Amino acid sequence: MADGQAAGVVPPRVSIITLGVADLGAATAFYESLGWTRSPASVELMTLFTMQGSVLGLYEWGALADDAGVPADGSGFRGVALALNCASEADVDTVFAAWVAAGATATKAPHKAFWGGYSSYVADPDGHLWEIAYNPYSRLDEQGILRID
Amino acid sequence: MADGQAAGVVPPRVSIITLGVADLGAATAFYESLGWTRSPASVELMTLFTMQGSVLGLYEWGALADDAGVPADGSGFRGVALALNCASEADVDTVFAAWVAAGATATKAPHKAFWGGYSSYVADPDGHLWEIAYNPYSRLDEQGILRID
Repeated sequence: MADGQAAGVVPPRVSIITLGVADLGAATAFYESLGWTRSPASVELMTLFTMQGSVLGLYEWGALADDAGVPADGSGFRGVALALNCASEADVDTVFAAWVAAGATATKAPHKAFWGGYSSYVADPDGHLWEIAYNPYSRLDEQGILRID
Repeated sequence: MADGQAAGVVPPRVSIITLGVADLGAATAFYESLGWTRSPASVELMTLFTMQGSVLGLYEWGALADDAGVPADGSGFRGVALALNCASEADVDTVFAAWVAAGATATKAPHKAFWGGYSSYVADPDGHLWEIAYNPYSRLDEQGILRID
């Protein structure tokens, strides 16, 4: 990188989304209660779930901060939302209800969104925000991966 | 969901990872300077990048909080890290250098990690943490998607 040019060397890739959690066992149980299967690649300190196109990780909050080399203190809005896109408005209703039944907190009930889609938000027991949405202007491919182009 | 059972109805999917940013233009320019191409599906209020297996979104911090139905105030550690997995230790060095050259802040330089891999962390200009890592126990498929099983 002697020339300072980054173009081409950084693959556009989010391999793992790791969420810091207060209690790894409880957080794992929450995500399993959604019907997701803990990967056998999980280790004692980190739970992994195979997602469609990525991997979701759960890791103790302070350990994640330490791993990243930053202080663990934090509060309030985290500036991050993970969207789980569904294939229809009806699916949004069903998936939203499943999260709430599993113990997630609804922060926005399913509604027609200003951008033309259908959206809802839940917070997991550690406060991580997930948007459950349907976007009529994009599609999910055969692997369940959102295609916007 | 009358029976409270969620199993099977919630697809294991992170369709979009949306990061709240202070200045959408500046944040877009930062990610473009990594060599990533802004998707033509982007709209005035939201920048989108097609990732390998998902989509990265940039959205103004307060607008994202409002969309999620939560207060916008927040500080400190956010309990989230996005991992960009590379195919080798040498690639980690190269990719890490590219982020730093683009203006990211190194919070951990590339190093042999306790779990047997090779890891580094950077924070983007809005403080969002990215781990640039190589994991010898997993592979990247032909689409660049991390496979842990």
